Amino acid sequence: MRDNRHIPAIVTATSRRRFLRRTAVSGLGAMGAAWAGKSLAGESPFDAARGPGDPLSGHGERSQYVKLARIPEAGPGKRNVDPSDAINSKTPLGQLVGTITPTDLHYERSHAGVPDIDPAQYRLLIHGLVKQPLVLTLDDLQRMPSVSRIHFIECTGNGWENWKTADPNLTVQNTHGLVSTNEWTGVPLRFLAELVGKMPKSTWMLAEGGDGAGVDRSIPLTDEILDEAVVAYGQNGEPLRPTNGFPVRLLMPGFEGNLNIKWLRRLKFGDQPWMTRWETDRYTQLLADGKAMQFQLRMETNSVITQPSGMMEIKPGYNRISGVAWSGHGKIAKVEISTDEAKTWTAAQLAGPVLPRAQTRFQMDWTWDGKPTKIVSRSTDDHGNVQPDRASFIARVGTNALFHYNAQQTWSIDASGKVRNALA
Amino acid sequence: MRDNRHIPAIVTATSRRRFLRRTAVSGLGAMGAAWAGKSLAGESPFDAARGPGDPLSGHGERSQYVKLARIPEAGPGKRNVDPSDAINSKTPLGQLVGTITPTDLHYERSHAGVPDIDPAQYRLLIHGLVKQPLVLTLDDLQRMPSVSRIHFIECTGNGWENWKTADPNLTVQNTHGLVSTNEWTGVPLRFLAELVGKMPKSTWMLAEGGDGAGVDRSIPLTDEILDEAVVAYGQNGEPLRPTNGFPVRLLMPGFEGNLNIKWLRRLKFGDQPWMTRWETDRYTQLLADGKAMQFQLRMETNSVITQPSGMMEIKPGYNRISGVAWSGHGKIAKVEISTDEAKTWTAAQLAGPVLPRAQTRFQMDWTWDGKPTKIVSRSTDDHGNVQPDRASFIARVGTNALFHYNAQQTWSIDASGKVRNALA
Repeated sequence: MRDNRHIPAIVTATSRRRFLRRTAVSGLGAMGAAWAGKSLAGESPFDAARGPGDPLSGHGERSQYVKLARIPEAGPGKRNVDPSDAINSKTPLGQLVGTITPTDLHYERSHAGVPDIDPAQYRLLIHGLVKQPLVLTLDDLQRMPSVSRIHFIECTGNGWENWKTADPNLTVQNTHGLVSTNEWTGVPLRFLAELVGKMPKSTWMLAEGGDGAGVDRSIPLTDEILDEAVVAYGQNGEPLRPTNGFPVRLLMPGFEGNLNIKWLRRLKFGDQPWMTRWETDRYTQLLADGKAMQFQLRMETNSVITQPSGMMEIKPGYNRISGVAWSGHGKIAKVEISTDEAKTWTAAQLAGPVLPRAQTRFQMDWTWDGKPTKIVSRSTDDHGNVQPDRASFIARVGTNALFHYNAQQTWSIDASGKVRNALA
Repeated sequence: MRDNRHIPAIVTATSRRRFLRRTAVSGLGAMGAAWAGKSLAGESPFDAARGPGDPLSGHGERSQYVKLARIPEAGPGKRNVDPSDAINSKTPLGQLVGTITPTDLHYERSHAGVPDIDPAQYRLLIHGLVKQPLVLTLDDLQRMPSVSRIHFIECTGNGWENWKTADPNLTVQNTHGLVSTNEWTGVPLRFLAELVGKMPKSTWMLAEGGDGAGVDRSIPLTDEILDEAVVAYGQNGEPLRPTNGFPVRLLMPGFEGNLNIKWLRRLKFGDQPWMTRWETDRYTQLLADGKAMQFQLRMETNSVITQPSGMMEIKPGYNRISGVAWSGHGKIAKVEISTDEAKTWTAAQLAGPVLPRAQTRFQMDWTWDGKPTKIVSRSTDDHGNVQPDRASFIARVGTNALFHYNAQQTWSIDASGKVRNALA
């Protein structure tokens, strides 16, 4: 029973059932025979609890058996540091299911630690090329019309671990843990722009954070950004957590994480970028020819296999491959998986909500023959963008830069079933 | 600035903007003039944090300024009891935004407290009218094909507080806090039924919980239920919390909460209902004529205004009305709000994801003239079901029963702006 070889593969043949059309999880077909003759001798359900359990409570905490935590790190290759040196802490993608990231496990990236702003003192200044500058309280914002949207946020440095070399001992939390998906609630940027009377000649907006680092970025005011951006105060139904900018952050769906300014203090409308140090130094992309690219804002089509992934172990026979895919451009249209070192590819099933600019769960059955191999995923979004292999990515971008790495993630599996981080 | 009367109403005029089409949040129109001449003298953004904040960490906890908790209660009218007497604890709907319920605030309803089952000892028995009975481990289930779906679960007793009388001091957490929405991940029931070879003559399934009370319910195996039901191990991306059935529960989207069996121990396929005490006694509906109805499984079209709601206070002038609507039948098609004691109704805006059998956020601008009144919401789902007023509901169902109360919720507002629970 507990031998995973007996779990049947999912047959992908066409089925007439409505269920199958909708969920893309197909029936058993001939594989059901794998269970024939399975004995129940000695098997029974778990012993029901005796007597009363714990009293009902104000908070439903995690089981004592569940251990989940982010990993604070100090940058590429700098793990196990003093927490006060950490610059980010990463989501444990390998232990999660579905598409929503638990609120307390949403990744964080901070430049001066985490302030806890008093909401009663909170004031947002909106000024610049506007008819009517305003200072808004949190209460003001919470009484304005709101939207709620499920979106990923991704640090532009996500994946940087594998750009130059591949440490074989990395987990998927190490390699890809700087992306998370939550439901965000707040006031549409378009509404605020109209409220202050943004002048037509204002084509850029400065967003400034109120942390010790004062992160500020210039954002081009395209129609799309005015439509999509949200001044957010809610995260998975509750107020933002301090690590996500409490009480207010900017949400820029599909764009570099650092544009989603936390502890938002100021929005200034103007007619050109401000050229802050965050966009002339920190978040520029040094190309192979020595020139640097600015304002590479949108996050690329990406995917990663999370089960099995680095430092896990599998057994020969049936294994389910599962992972997440996302694109800053829109919806995920397709994820393909190769289990033979990128020689042949099979379309995976998309197993849940497929929302624009949100993580999408994919899965595929696989029977491992016990021989060493490499597994890898490749996503395509609804704009036709295809996730590149590592060689193509490096041929295009070089190895000087740190950001926007979206090459396919390869995991090697040795004869003992140990899964390790690998290059293609 | 902090006077809410200055926040403009949302004009509902047609607009050509794509943003407006998509989000149903419309522009300012002439109301922007309300801001003309607003002075910024003495106003500034909040003081940015000085120096380093708190170190990065394994968990992003709530701000010290945010207080959120469920309320354990002992049944209708039985509040402030010893926690060990509580039978449910309710979601603080009045403090939440968006549509996803924070995982630790998902409501709970338990009949013998909360057991914390050791996942290593977990075994699910599937047997009865099947070709191949099976006992599955948690690991087995987690390796099977999965789906992830965002759905509400609602206790069939939700709303019972207002059926007979209306205590004016109730909050919306008291009156409606037995409904929550999470993303659930698990194995489709259809897959498991095929795996064990459910016989065609099997038209019912018994689901049994492993808590001290051993809650068990008979479930009719309609095509719809086989398509929709999930044997779930994941909740908002992580393992179920013990209060939600860790490690495994049944998810029955749109049906009575008690069918979503927690700490799931056994599924038995049969050809008739088992007539357990939960369906012959506890969860039957005593009608006006003294007869009792069994198997009234599907939760009705419902809605409630959460801001403002019971025990809150508002001021004259601009106020935003916001709330949640849901239906066990499908998607919410429309929510209407009356601010004049149900005399006239205005369509509210749907402010975020509108998913089937999930809570949907609605909102509407309102300028309160300072005179006492009553406000109320009314939802319609995509099957044409309309939430009834309380008089119609009672005329149909009577007042003997405790369950499936979905009458419109009325809040009274007195001249001082105090909001209270009221009958129509």
